[in-house]
Amino acid sequence: MSLNIQVTRTQHPKEKPDPNHLGFGDFFTDHMFVMNYTEGQGWHDPRIIPYAPISLEPAAMVFHYAQEMFEGMKAYKAPDGRVLLFRPDKNIARANNSNDRLCIPQIPEEDMLQAIKAIVAEDKDWIPEGKATSLYIRPFIIATDAHLGVRPSRTYQFYVILSPVGAYYKEGLNPVKIYVEDEYVRAVKGGMGHVKTGGNYAASIKAQMIAAERGYTQVLWLDGVHRRYIEEVGTMNVFFVIDDEVVTPALNGSILPGVTRDSAICMLKSWGIKVSERQIAIDELFEAAKEGRLREAFGTGTAAVISPIGELNWEGNIAPINGGAIGEISQKLYDNLTGIQLGLIPDTFGWTVEI
Amino acid sequence: MSLNIQVTRTQHPKEKPDPNHLGFGDFFTDHMFVMNYTEGQGWHDPRIIPYAPISLEPAAMVFHYAQEMFEGMKAYKAPDGRVLLFRPDKNIARANNSNDRLCIPQIPEEDMLQAIKAIVAEDKDWIPEGKATSLYIRPFIIATDAHLGVRPSRTYQFYVILSPVGAYYKEGLNPVKIYVEDEYVRAVKGGMGHVKTGGNYAASIKAQMIAAERGYTQVLWLDGVHRRYIEEVGTMNVFFVIDDEVVTPALNGSILPGVTRDSAICMLKSWGIKVSERQIAIDELFEAAKEGRLREAFGTGTAAVISPIGELNWEGNIAPINGGAIGEISQKLYDNLTGIQLGLIPDTFGWTVEI
Repeated sequence: MSLNIQVTRTQHPKEKPDPNHLGFGDFFTDHMFVMNYTEGQGWHDPRIIPYAPISLEPAAMVFHYAQEMFEGMKAYKAPDGRVLLFRPDKNIARANNSNDRLCIPQIPEEDMLQAIKAIVAEDKDWIPEGKATSLYIRPFIIATDAHLGVRPSRTYQFYVILSPVGAYYKEGLNPVKIYVEDEYVRAVKGGMGHVKTGGNYAASIKAQMIAAERGYTQVLWLDGVHRRYIEEVGTMNVFFVIDDEVVTPALNGSILPGVTRDSAICMLKSWGIKVSERQIAIDELFEAAKEGRLREAFGTGTAAVISPIGELNWEGNIAPINGGAIGEISQKLYDNLTGIQLGLIPDTFGWTVEI
Repeated sequence: MSLNIQVTRTQHPKEKPDPNHLGFGDFFTDHMFVMNYTEGQGWHDPRIIPYAPISLEPAAMVFHYAQEMFEGMKAYKAPDGRVLLFRPDKNIARANNSNDRLCIPQIPEEDMLQAIKAIVAEDKDWIPEGKATSLYIRPFIIATDAHLGVRPSRTYQFYVILSPVGAYYKEGLNPVKIYVEDEYVRAVKGGMGHVKTGGNYAASIKAQMIAAERGYTQVLWLDGVHRRYIEEVGTMNVFFVIDDEVVTPALNGSILPGVTRDSAICMLKSWGIKVSERQIAIDELFEAAKEGRLREAFGTGTAAVISPIGELNWEGNIAPINGGAIGEISQKLYDNLTGIQLGLIPDTFGWTVEI
């Protein structure tokens, strides 16, 4: 049974932002999707309404206990006018994994997809068409019970908001400098690192600020148990090209299973490149760099797609990568991933979904 | 310089709840304290206004990245009519530690105390006077920038809301059954476990629900590195009486430095009882239980004050404690702590602050 979405259109459409100065996550479209959950009743009242403030009790549990989850995906406008989503099934499955870890009620996958398609279709004129631009889609759920005391909320609100965006990093495709974090920990097995929830990001801000003060764009996280094995970079998964092999940390329970990560692995393998998902020690990585065997490094994520890494700093040891320039594999992955996402090249993987 | 607090009183005072059926955290008083932060301007516009919903952009960072902190404290009405706070300086110092970890701007200690005193004085008629009741005080800060993308917010709101409360656990002072958690992890050194922020609580809900399904009130958390050393119990610190010594986990960077924990340690020492803050392995604890040397166990926290533990379950091994009855030390601590908090006995520690 599909959702019966009620639509209330804005009487005051906003002016669209300059497509050449979008930044990331600062502009929002005319409408949003909303649906409520009430214990005993389930998810109800799916609706598209004008984008407007949310009104919540000060005691709403999301403010105190961070029972909240989100997803991030993008819609693109192909040159032939088609509106494309990229592997929405993966984001939707992950959303329900996040819900499970956070004791938030599941949303049927087909309902979530219908909601996302409906709101993107409603505001499709907001999809920017400039280079490296897209419409960022942010589904999220917040706990709304007005209650102090730790337990799962009995009421929730599910939103989908949309933001026309440019590049996530001001560097664009220019390689970023990364600081290896050895004091703060993002997540540990048994925690929430494998799902998308606010607490993981709250935990990460301080290290990011310290790295920024030192002139680095992001941090490379090490595991919280041994403080030795590589986990993620900033808010992205991380890949290294060592000799003729691409290596990336295995999904171990504290790493986010990124959709772009999975797509990069599939694409690299389709090109006949060897990809290993395994444990990578930071000392092993620096040893490879010293020996000239670390040829490329890059992050993957929905926001930046591919973000090349030009330098690593681990306790004062500097490892320059590929002379600070984008590597061949990084560039080829970026071109092909964004090519498929934008409908510029044939999608031989069956990843794009037309709205 | 003290805050110039503007006061707007409600035109519609609410009916006060039945003091015999308060529960915990479900009722809120007539007013709340609010203050805004804007980058470049600092904290501004301190005010007391009627308790009412908060209106925020759907993109407000608190909903997505859980950049939020809170505190919990209580106000009591003494038999002679004085309104008492308990060690507010400790909560306020911890609040700024939480702010530091979360990259939230500090609030001057004297301003936070002034705000708390002002709102409690405003709604002092809401302080319940029944047995085991008090006015729970919840200061909290939320990140309010409408921005998708991980960075510290540039705007915040600081609130203090008040809730007349009864016992936190329905068991009251009757010992609770505790399940030793060996799958999920609350926090790890380098994370946020030592400060009071939503993410820690979001991470804890699932284990709590699984324990509840098994008939246990709370979980006992083990450390995330070795999965062996005891950290906290539910949302409280934990103490054990082994032989003639009281032991509690040392503050190691992943444990919350509880105000009730510190008070219990001071009080026990003042009675000439030996207290050790150290690493405690779960196997050591069960060995002591088997040998009949584990005489008492209890949690400490602002909400429940002292919560006796009557049984521990670790991977199916059951350790009954003190025949499931409250122990002598637990009872004496509860009587003396609540006695001082309520102004029933002389405060030889100088802990209470009169409003």
